[in-house]
Amino acid sequence: MSTAKTYKWQDLSASSQAQVLSRPVYSVDDALKTTVTAILDEVKQNGDSALIAYAKQFDNAELNRLSLNKAALARLSAELPQKVKAAIDCAYRQISRFHQAQAVADIRLETAPGVNCQMKTRAIGKIGLYIPGGTAPLPSTVLMLGIPSQIAGNAVRVLCTPPNSEGKIHPAIAYAALTCGIEEVILAGGAQAIGAMAYGTKTVAKVDKIFGPGNAFVTMAKQLVSNANPATAIDMPAGPSEVMVIADANANAEFIAADLLSQAEHGADSQVLLLCNSSDKIAQVNDALARQLAQLPRQAIAAKALENSALIQTTSVAQSIKIANDYAPEHLIIQTDSADEVVDKIVNAASIFVGPWSPESAGDYASGTNHVLPTYGYGRALSSLGLADFTKRYTIQTLSRAGLEGIGQAIIDLAQAEGLDAHANAVAVRLQETQP
Amino acid sequence: MSTAKTYKWQDLSASSQAQVLSRPVYSVDDALKTTVTAILDEVKQNGDSALIAYAKQFDNAELNRLSLNKAALARLSAELPQKVKAAIDCAYRQISRFHQAQAVADIRLETAPGVNCQMKTRAIGKIGLYIPGGTAPLPSTVLMLGIPSQIAGNAVRVLCTPPNSEGKIHPAIAYAALTCGIEEVILAGGAQAIGAMAYGTKTVAKVDKIFGPGNAFVTMAKQLVSNANPATAIDMPAGPSEVMVIADANANAEFIAADLLSQAEHGADSQVLLLCNSSDKIAQVNDALARQLAQLPRQAIAAKALENSALIQTTSVAQSIKIANDYAPEHLIIQTDSADEVVDKIVNAASIFVGPWSPESAGDYASGTNHVLPTYGYGRALSSLGLADFTKRYTIQTLSRAGLEGIGQAIIDLAQAEGLDAHANAVAVRLQETQP
Repeated sequence: MSTAKTYKWQDLSASSQAQVLSRPVYSVDDALKTTVTAILDEVKQNGDSALIAYAKQFDNAELNRLSLNKAALARLSAELPQKVKAAIDCAYRQISRFHQAQAVADIRLETAPGVNCQMKTRAIGKIGLYIPGGTAPLPSTVLMLGIPSQIAGNAVRVLCTPPNSEGKIHPAIAYAALTCGIEEVILAGGAQAIGAMAYGTKTVAKVDKIFGPGNAFVTMAKQLVSNANPATAIDMPAGPSEVMVIADANANAEFIAADLLSQAEHGADSQVLLLCNSSDKIAQVNDALARQLAQLPRQAIAAKALENSALIQTTSVAQSIKIANDYAPEHLIIQTDSADEVVDKIVNAASIFVGPWSPESAGDYASGTNHVLPTYGYGRALSSLGLADFTKRYTIQTLSRAGLEGIGQAIIDLAQAEGLDAHANAVAVRLQETQP
Repeated sequence: MSTAKTYKWQDLSASSQAQVLSRPVYSVDDALKTTVTAILDEVKQNGDSALIAYAKQFDNAELNRLSLNKAALARLSAELPQKVKAAIDCAYRQISRFHQAQAVADIRLETAPGVNCQMKTRAIGKIGLYIPGGTAPLPSTVLMLGIPSQIAGNAVRVLCTPPNSEGKIHPAIAYAALTCGIEEVILAGGAQAIGAMAYGTKTVAKVDKIFGPGNAFVTMAKQLVSNANPATAIDMPAGPSEVMVIADANANAEFIAADLLSQAEHGADSQVLLLCNSSDKIAQVNDALARQLAQLPRQAIAAKALENSALIQTTSVAQSIKIANDYAPEHLIIQTDSADEVVDKIVNAASIFVGPWSPESAGDYASGTNHVLPTYGYGRALSSLGLADFTKRYTIQTLSRAGLEGIGQAIIDLAQAEGLDAHANAVAVRLQETQP
């Protein structure tokens, strides 16, 4: 049974350390780019008829309509087992609460006498949500995108997901969409769905920002539309999922192994890393990995991911913290004594799971946090998805005459220092005005 | 004297309306991309020595050091006229106050019994600020980037700006940097500066996110590093600056003309648009434009921008509001009766200037709002620059055993519905655990 490689951190050279923590390097796949560009162009030019043709070609679906309405979604939902409905309802409650708590107040401030500045936060008008299809449905992703957009109040929410060969979608997707107040689903997948939302078609509204995960076609299409002129905004760059665990001698090896495997089953390119200052514990984790892996349906995928993973022996929890901050993991699990103190020292991680009873799968589904997270080290600069991503901030200034008189000379002097006389003049003509 | 074209909105066909409001379309300039890619590669490979060579080539500067330290910046600052120092100090006060007011509290919420979720907002570790050089210095941009980064508390702040032929920078840049607590300036400009901050050199720290405006080389370099794998985050996509004014019969034509010209002098590709429901007022504005333009030092640039601008007669302020929301201007000036009511109906604009005493130049320099704004219609989805852009949000969850017991079945049921058994198992092994 294949298990994970182990390393002693202080025995590694700097370049070996970098190698152990290296993420897969992607280069632009020119063939994929060409293919996706052609699909986007086809959708731009032929709209709905292109979507229908691609549904036939890629999804083996003969569509006589491109969308499912509320009644159709309700009929599909009725097929969903009660326990899955209850699970979606449970997750919905926590995710709603946590995202409602993220609402921010508008700001209004008199920055100088008679100079009133405001910052308003408002929903983006039109957003698009992409939900992958394929072998397994992802109702959890519907919740993670649908709930914050419901709270933000985006006026238009387009949800695209590929149809199955019967022109339908999985009941769990239908139920999750309705739960989030989304009453229409567009039957389009892949790059063609991204194109439809970026450009608009007769059936699909052109949106301002596109959210959601997808395969290589979807990822390439999102990158292309976000770099076009004009561009469509996207949620964040994609990358393979990853988990890092910081553990000490008192951690539970079975729990750690289960968490590492829950990440490993995502895909062969998943990154799975343990930092532990106890060699005994690392040995126990390796044993538990072998035992648990043998029981998994997605054993082949997880075993492949484990080949690229590493169980790293550190000299101390402090060293583990330093490595984690340098790596900036998407998911960071902390199973140490005084875990709260460790959390306070973490500066780079997108979602953190504290203590033995906080598996990553809690955050993937139902704790309330979002599972759309910056991966690939992007958590150093980018944020975990939240309510803010479905809104935009803009500013307003209202000056009284006295307000402009107060700061007008500074504006004139700065504008002239920058050689922008018309900027200075826009103040001067006002200050010269004799009418009140 | 060239003045602006006028249109009656309701007389235009839909396609003519779109044409009048069309922004310049950019396509990727392959030659520029090749040039910039070569510069980035050279900096990646040769670091400081590449920067020194490019300073010689592009800036005609023989550098014996790549940075100015605090003492050097203080010596340069001493050359700055007192009135410009006072203007920078005045602007600093308002901008600081408004950006301090943008601080957000961390969130801590028990989403279900024993399920504690947090969202923390923390400074990005390392940021890079680019300040263009050229004929006129831009101390205002130093303030607009330097102040929020000072408030956020980014641990590393790299400021790059091109040297003049004496290997120095303008005293206003030095003074503004010191005012924002930036005590070192890197003497590098153009694509090579962006490369230095993205990859790091011996002198220049590798940063997590790059901010700031620049010429076509800088813009291309920012786009390339933000699309690389791994990518460096950037502030926002660049586009030509633009202003839209909504006015009515009671607006002051001289003020409007001055505002339109203050935008027009930015560059020949600036977009300058007036929406007004009074034909008399439009005629007055056109007269005032001709008169004021004749007095401007940057007359040639402004006249060129006016060729692409439009004074549009609408049937009502309500119609002007609709056009503005569709266009999503970077700057929107509202000079109408009951201007506050008009503001409340605006959903797409990056920075709004309300009433006769609020010229755009107030926001460009000293009202307190940021002048780094989404242009090109991106304000529909993107935010005006603010404190948030110098921070990132991440989440933390801490479940008690009872907390996991409460939501564990929902996690298991959702994971199984998605075919992710290892995710379910990470909960199951914990719920089966007999130890407390």
